[in-house]
Amino acid sequence: MPPTTIARVLETSLYAEDLRAADHFYGTVLGLERIAFVEGRHVFFKCGAGVVLIFDPRTTATQPTTVNGAPVPLHGARGAGHIALAVADAELPAWRMHLRTNGIAIESEVTWPRGGRSLYMRDPAGNSVEIASPTLWGFQE
Amino acid sequence: MPPTTIARVLETSLYAEDLRAADHFYGTVLGLERIAFVEGRHVFFKCGAGVVLIFDPRTTATQPTTVNGAPVPLHGARGAGHIALAVADAELPAWRMHLRTNGIAIESEVTWPRGGRSLYMRDPAGNSVEIASPTLWGFQE
Repeated sequence: MPPTTIARVLETSLYAEDLRAADHFYGTVLGLERIAFVEGRHVFFKCGAGVVLIFDPRTTATQPTTVNGAPVPLHGARGAGHIALAVADAELPAWRMHLRTNGIAIESEVTWPRGGRSLYMRDPAGNSVEIASPTLWGFQE
Repeated sequence: MPPTTIARVLETSLYAEDLRAADHFYGTVLGLERIAFVEGRHVFFKCGAGVVLIFDPRTTATQPTTVNGAPVPLHGARGAGHIALAVADAELPAWRMHLRTNGIAIESEVTWPRGGRSLYMRDPAGNSVEIASPTLWGFQE
């Protein structure tokens, strides 16, 4: 048995080669708070009580780094990843309009069987990004 | 300006071809609550007020699905992704022992400059999995 229950996800990662485009999309269009930008390596955002990490896999899959003498393990994926970000269901119409105003195409809009709706779009790197009501998973908004 | 602040990350995704091995690792070793298993496609877990989604990219990158007539966008990445899961700093020694007991090698252990520690390991698919105190990002435990 695990010693404790894991409290939550702390870091969610996606990969993008164009970090400036990712910064514009997640920071400006989606409005996440940028907390770090290292040219050619990563851009990080705060989101609720966790962080969204966007890495350039050309760097993070190949270039070792250390912190206080300990290696930070390499990672880096290719191809479309997926993330969903939580907004209240009542806010989705305003988000739909905001995304259109910013030239972001809505790839699909799903109404889930047990309630909740999702707007799907692509980030500039082609990752599948979903804005959704947490009720689709049975969570409170 | 975005119409509202995004509340939090709702879905965090990783990719694995062997979903039964992923199920054992995330469900049994890490103790996340499994909420769905579809053979050959995905295994899903609840974690705090969000979900961790493990997809077989051979399926999700190629086989279209629909919900209530709307397409669910395709995605699927290859190579090592990264996730961090939050536990209190005081619980890390018990987690280190638990992981060793279950044959999970600790790839690295980092002490962060502003406090907080991380244990790094690999899931069976090679994704970089970190168990860490939220204080490393300035969050409460």
